[in-house]
Amino acid sequence: MDTHTSYRYEQLADLIVGMIDKGALAPGARLPSVRAVSEQHSISISTALQAYRLLEDRGVLVARPQSGFYVAAARRGALALPSTARPRTKASTVSISGAVAALLEHASNSKLVPLGCAVPDAALLQSKRLDLALARAARQHGTRYNAYCPAQGEPGLRREIAKRAMRIGHALSPDDVLITAGCTEALTLALTAVAQRGDTIAIESPTYVGLLHTLEVLGLKAFELPTNPTRGIEVGALERLLETEPVAACVLSSCFNNPLGSAMAEADKRALLAVLARHAVPLIEDDVYGDIYFGRERPKPFIALDGGANTIYCSSFSKSLAPGYRIGWIAAGAYAQQVMERKLAFSLCGPALPQVALADFLASGTYDTHLRSIRRIFEDNLARMTCAIEASFPPETKVSRPAGGFVLWLELPRRFDSRELFDQALEHGICFAPGDVFSAGRRFRNCLRLSAGHLWSKQVEDGIRQLGRLAKEMLAR
Amino acid sequence: MDTHTSYRYEQLADLIVGMIDKGALAPGARLPSVRAVSEQHSISISTALQAYRLLEDRGVLVARPQSGFYVAAARRGALALPSTARPRTKASTVSISGAVAALLEHASNSKLVPLGCAVPDAALLQSKRLDLALARAARQHGTRYNAYCPAQGEPGLRREIAKRAMRIGHALSPDDVLITAGCTEALTLALTAVAQRGDTIAIESPTYVGLLHTLEVLGLKAFELPTNPTRGIEVGALERLLETEPVAACVLSSCFNNPLGSAMAEADKRALLAVLARHAVPLIEDDVYGDIYFGRERPKPFIALDGGANTIYCSSFSKSLAPGYRIGWIAAGAYAQQVMERKLAFSLCGPALPQVALADFLASGTYDTHLRSIRRIFEDNLARMTCAIEASFPPETKVSRPAGGFVLWLELPRRFDSRELFDQALEHGICFAPGDVFSAGRRFRNCLRLSAGHLWSKQVEDGIRQLGRLAKEMLAR
Repeated sequence: MDTHTSYRYEQLADLIVGMIDKGALAPGARLPSVRAVSEQHSISISTALQAYRLLEDRGVLVARPQSGFYVAAARRGALALPSTARPRTKASTVSISGAVAALLEHASNSKLVPLGCAVPDAALLQSKRLDLALARAARQHGTRYNAYCPAQGEPGLRREIAKRAMRIGHALSPDDVLITAGCTEALTLALTAVAQRGDTIAIESPTYVGLLHTLEVLGLKAFELPTNPTRGIEVGALERLLETEPVAACVLSSCFNNPLGSAMAEADKRALLAVLARHAVPLIEDDVYGDIYFGRERPKPFIALDGGANTIYCSSFSKSLAPGYRIGWIAAGAYAQQVMERKLAFSLCGPALPQVALADFLASGTYDTHLRSIRRIFEDNLARMTCAIEASFPPETKVSRPAGGFVLWLELPRRFDSRELFDQALEHGICFAPGDVFSAGRRFRNCLRLSAGHLWSKQVEDGIRQLGRLAKEMLAR
Repeated sequence: MDTHTSYRYEQLADLIVGMIDKGALAPGARLPSVRAVSEQHSISISTALQAYRLLEDRGVLVARPQSGFYVAAARRGALALPSTARPRTKASTVSISGAVAALLEHASNSKLVPLGCAVPDAALLQSKRLDLALARAARQHGTRYNAYCPAQGEPGLRREIAKRAMRIGHALSPDDVLITAGCTEALTLALTAVAQRGDTIAIESPTYVGLLHTLEVLGLKAFELPTNPTRGIEVGALERLLETEPVAACVLSSCFNNPLGSAMAEADKRALLAVLARHAVPLIEDDVYGDIYFGRERPKPFIALDGGANTIYCSSFSKSLAPGYRIGWIAAGAYAQQVMERKLAFSLCGPALPQVALADFLASGTYDTHLRSIRRIFEDNLARMTCAIEASFPPETKVSRPAGGFVLWLELPRRFDSRELFDQALEHGICFAPGDVFSAGRRFRNCLRLSAGHLWSKQVEDGIRQLGRLAKEMLAR
């Protein structure tokens, strides 16, 4: 490679960074094609590609297969990343009663700027084809399906889910799958199959508020593991825990932990599985965000790395297609029998027609096209949201850089009180999730989670800027 | 009343009994109108009516408002009633694992004569209007409802259910109602709200196999109360239990206990509520069969008698309209908050569109017409089934005389083994429910339950006669 060529591609790269800094290229914006840019700048295609690849390596651009290069969500060097929490080193009972109900209530209030609930906007989900499949199933086969469906779920849907399992890198047969009422029921079945009241469950910190609520109602204790905002939980911390006290199970996100958006490296996942296997502690993984990845490949869930030997896999269609349908699933491996007994005992079986409709929709093959589209939308939303935060929040604000999903985690200085901001925000017609609901011990009071699951709009952008101003005022006092 | 008139109406009554005995009038058959019979026999209308009323009082005929007189399901004096079980007098852990799964599996095997599962035949349920409502909701409002529905359930459906509460004699507001995944989830939420692992629950004996399974999985002990096949549980037995050991809750059918079809008198229900209130033990009632009554009025559930002070009411649409929709509900009164927290923790919320469709269907006002029709069908089915049993089973067989619902309970001599009959029956392509699955202690091995929930057919009738022959052969050995 000669110096002249180096100069050319670096020059182009600098030009692009300059355009981004000046706002001429917004986060999420698509760059001209390699061919187009080579013609515009009279350089070779390989030189243009080299510039794009350099910026991709620096995290400034993101490449999307069959689509091109886009300005990345968050440019490195803007706001700092949140710190890894150091939770208390003992298991605690959970007490977040009311938090889930309150969040859902605010979420259903269409007068609020919807930054609170991690529910994708129906306008983005394009569920029309699925709804038409349901209408067709109801009209044509209503009588046939007006009976108890098998407790495991409709065979047709289990077949489609098993077919899709190649995408997560793990072979499943339809008999390995049990259909649930969303991932929430899957987690409940898994937890009750492996743990009893009073047992300790190791979890990420911060973690999904719904998981904490389920632990609380089941009378399970939570041990919060330090979780890095990009790399996920620290395997060493888990190892030290297992060496000192009995743990009934570990519950982790497969990837894109809610609220951090962190994703463990495959090597760390393997190390973690080895530690768990050594102590005979089962892993329950929650993969609801797995299909919403921004990288080149879908990260492998744990079940694909241990062959399901010690893993109970839970997922759903709620984050990527149909929260209203309440369809999730579980592949419980060695615990399949216990999970099935619990499904029968707690809810007998799910409704048949929505399952028939979803099977029909999945068989049509349009789900992957849909996923490609919403991945981009969520990535763009996160980029815009990050920009709005940079422009309006206090400069000490740290913000997560998710590798998937559609939420952002913000950390403000210690003295900041997100509960106070929450009350003020509601008065301004804005809803978000205060940080303390993401921890069994109600930590993270100086943090907050914003959801970018809604159609981007001036209302959403103004809401974020208003939040930023309020936060600045609070810190200035 | 002169002797001549007495003679005339008694003569007519004897004639009708003779026709029934000879099979000229089958159970469930409609008699000529009072006017027609008075013309045929040249007697006054009041004399004809007197004859019909006499036979109604004797239980030979059944009067149906706006319809006329029908040959009753079971003529008194045919087979004897089953005896009241005397269960062991201590609470026991439940162990019926696999029984529910096995029953459901056989139920879904369309090659078997379907006498096993207490699921109404889709062909009888006429769910077309409901299915069309679902198709309409999916087509027109799919996007609107593609979000998490409130955990309590769709407001429209809760409104319709609250409106119907006048039919059970108890005022409910929509806010008193929480929608569940069938009555199974309602019972799970109720049990986990009032009891913890290891606690004792007082139940009917025999009782619903699904309830036993839920108790088992929740680690609850069962205390089986002696239950009379017509009058239900003995209040005295419950009182003695409460005086001797702690009981977390009592779970009873509101009426038409499955499998006995028994119904407690209102006075007994009031006495029972007083006993429970005195010991501060909550009552969980299961009213899934309440709308399928054969008498003139719907029996009042417990909640209507204590105003809900100490009662958690559970029901569903699975026995009367739509088992495939999996929609039940719970009115938990003082425990509403705990039940709501559990709903959120275990399954978050139900699917929205089936609830919207059911609300639409209920608002259309056709549900009561539908209920009137299936009540008659189930009553006729039970009458025909009783006849077939009388004609084919061993003469020592005792059979229940349900006041509602669609199942029969048969008791055979002690030495009879319904498990052996079960295996033989499967070889003959017939499924039924062996008696031992209706008891925590696996009692009732000499009993069996037959479901009359299917469209009556030669196949069903032949199946019952075949069962009878097999039972006779077994007893003759």
